[in-house]
Amino acid sequence: MEQNKTPELRSGEVSNGSEVQNDATVQFIGTIRTPYTSRDLCPRQGKLDGPDCRLELFAQWHAALTGIEKFEHLDVLYWLHQSRRDLVLQSPRDNGQTIGTFALRSPVRPNPIGVSRVRLIRVEPGILVVKGLDCLDKTPLVDIKPSRCEFTSQAPEKAADTPL
Amino acid sequence: MEQNKTPELRSGEVSNGSEVQNDATVQFIGTIRTPYTSRDLCPRQGKLDGPDCRLELFAQWHAALTGIEKFEHLDVLYWLHQSRRDLVLQSPRDNGQTIGTFALRSPVRPNPIGVSRVRLIRVEPGILVVKGLDCLDKTPLVDIKPSRCEFTSQAPEKAADTPL
Repeated sequence: MEQNKTPELRSGEVSNGSEVQNDATVQFIGTIRTPYTSRDLCPRQGKLDGPDCRLELFAQWHAALTGIEKFEHLDVLYWLHQSRRDLVLQSPRDNGQTIGTFALRSPVRPNPIGVSRVRLIRVEPGILVVKGLDCLDKTPLVDIKPSRCEFTSQAPEKAADTPL
Repeated sequence: MEQNKTPELRSGEVSNGSEVQNDATVQFIGTIRTPYTSRDLCPRQGKLDGPDCRLELFAQWHAALTGIEKFEHLDVLYWLHQSRRDLVLQSPRDNGQTIGTFALRSPVRPNPIGVSRVRLIRVEPGILVVKGLDCLDKTPLVDIKPSRCEFTSQAPEKAADTPL
């Protein structure tokens, strides 16, 4: 189960004991199609009554959509592939006043992952048609989850759910 | 601005024209400290009145917290470093019945990124004390954003915000 378990050492090999990992790889699971073909055309926030957009999944993930049709709202994660990643302070109005990156929802951030709540309109084979996105056409797709508000955990309850 | 622009070719070099990238690297920005030192101790969902947890940022990102104190709720993204990433169909109750990965909020998913809405209790230098997390102690931190509901875009309005 635990993919990052420290592998066993071979005879003579020496580890420094560190299990600290400083990064990880995101594998894209598909592509987002929107009407926004340039950044100027992207609205600042998607609207749930906006235009239809398509989440097109790569073939190996099609079956992972099983059961998704029962949710009206989904959280969609995507990789803002045109964003720079180095800014700590930003000036959204370009007026000399700055705000910390983590106090903004700007696409410019150390890990340019966008999170949008969308409305599920229709399921086609390997494709979800949704409303509510504001990202560029061809943005890489990273994850899809049922909206927190509509989701009831399917796993059995455990002691940790009811602390004393 | 565009970090992924196709680099120019040197004399004699040939590109296949593909700009498709299939993955990207997440850089961890800090570490999450929770009271949950094993997976059995993690609740299935964090509660906004649960125990205090700490988001401890690496030094290079401390200044990016500037202005965050004015938000009561934040979205926190983190890397579920002990999760396997290959399952397409899952059986949460281990009863032979399966559900697609994207119809679950299970930590087991192609990109094991958790998203939690937390309540900001206190800001210390380089550290946020929050409530509402359910992840393991020492989970790598990926991003912090103001909650969508409380955030008003700081950027100037543009034509794309008011479609005809």
